Amino acid sequence: MSAQPKRTLYGYWRSSASYRVRIALNLKGLDYTHQSVHLVKNEQRQPDFLNKNPQGLIPLYVEEDSTGRFELAQSLAIMDYLEMRYPDKPLLPADMHHCAKLRAAAFAIACDIHPLDNLRVLNYLEQQLGVEAEAKMTWYRHWITTGFQALERELPALLNGQTFSLGERPGYFEAVLVPQVYNAKRFDCVLDDFPNLLALNDACMKLPAFIAASPEKQPDAQ
Amino acid sequence: MSAQPKRTLYGYWRSSASYRVRIALNLKGLDYTHQSVHLVKNEQRQPDFLNKNPQGLIPLYVEEDSTGRFELAQSLAIMDYLEMRYPDKPLLPADMHHCAKLRAAAFAIACDIHPLDNLRVLNYLEQQLGVEAEAKMTWYRHWITTGFQALERELPALLNGQTFSLGERPGYFEAVLVPQVYNAKRFDCVLDDFPNLLALNDACMKLPAFIAASPEKQPDAQ
Repeated sequence: MSAQPKRTLYGYWRSSASYRVRIALNLKGLDYTHQSVHLVKNEQRQPDFLNKNPQGLIPLYVEEDSTGRFELAQSLAIMDYLEMRYPDKPLLPADMHHCAKLRAAAFAIACDIHPLDNLRVLNYLEQQLGVEAEAKMTWYRHWITTGFQALERELPALLNGQTFSLGERPGYFEAVLVPQVYNAKRFDCVLDDFPNLLALNDACMKLPAFIAASPEKQPDAQ
Repeated sequence: MSAQPKRTLYGYWRSSASYRVRIALNLKGLDYTHQSVHLVKNEQRQPDFLNKNPQGLIPLYVEEDSTGRFELAQSLAIMDYLEMRYPDKPLLPADMHHCAKLRAAAFAIACDIHPLDNLRVLNYLEQQLGVEAEAKMTWYRHWITTGFQALERELPALLNGQTFSLGERPGYFEAVLVPQVYNAKRFDCVLDDFPNLLALNDACMKLPAFIAASPEKQPDAQ
């Protein structure tokens, strides 16, 4: 049995991209050390962190073993890497059509909802464009609602009568969905029109992998 | 030899997400039919298209053969599917670390630049938030410049002294980069600080797969 590398996740308790990777690591049963990068204090833009990740974004995943050090940014790239590196307890199904559909649903959140509601974008709206608090929240909710409407409609086909995307187990899709639902609730989005998404979220939130990954359980939670 | 399915790409000549998939299909040498969905006329929000893709977004990739019809949204999910379904002429390297780094670089564009500069987002800024044309262009260029600065710095390590991400061949990363450079040029971003990215873009634009995929070559180009 080869030695496990030392794994570190640079993240922030409320960063939903970090939250995705925490879930993925937990679902695969992989230990890691949490390194806090304080987004609100702008620590991700400081030279020390920029040397690690020029993108100045979290999460950043680091693996170290006797062969060297490997650093990887971008939550979905990290999840894809974990899937290749640790194929046990897969996050995606072997069926290529089902796999592609689940990836597409995850991307619909990761590319078409989350980037628009990111802290740096909300800051730009407020500071550079002078958008008022109320209009900023309307923006926030608009992109969640638009994206969730489509996903709600697609979810029955994605789940195919099962509880989770992998049948009896959640995976890649749920690791992206749950942090987005968390954010939606945090900013008081009305979610009455999304019973399928909420049922899936609630089923996940009963599982240790998701509970342990939740923002409030992180060492840097305030 | 099994029969090839009929492939259709619903897209729009200037959609950079459609442009990515056109490049990927061409790099793999896969024939397809182009079906125009006119973004500026909002055809992607009409019931006929929403029935195909509830997300109301392009591109949408469709495969049909004797076993049925398979529809897939989200450009990166489509590229990942093409890679699984047609493993010849791979878009990503076999080395899992290099593969992960290239995916992360592609996501840095697809998640952290492009979604913010999408037509629907620019329309929201203008129509819902009353952002003036000049401030809208500043927004546009801000996200490209911020993202490109990091990629420019990372590119030498990604290419490792080679011309393309796969050595002598371009792949997944270039299929995402080139449409973003096209957009940047279209909106007069100053790109002087990105010689590495431009050199890679120019090397790609000499290849038939990229030339044939370019917006101006599409049947719905105006």
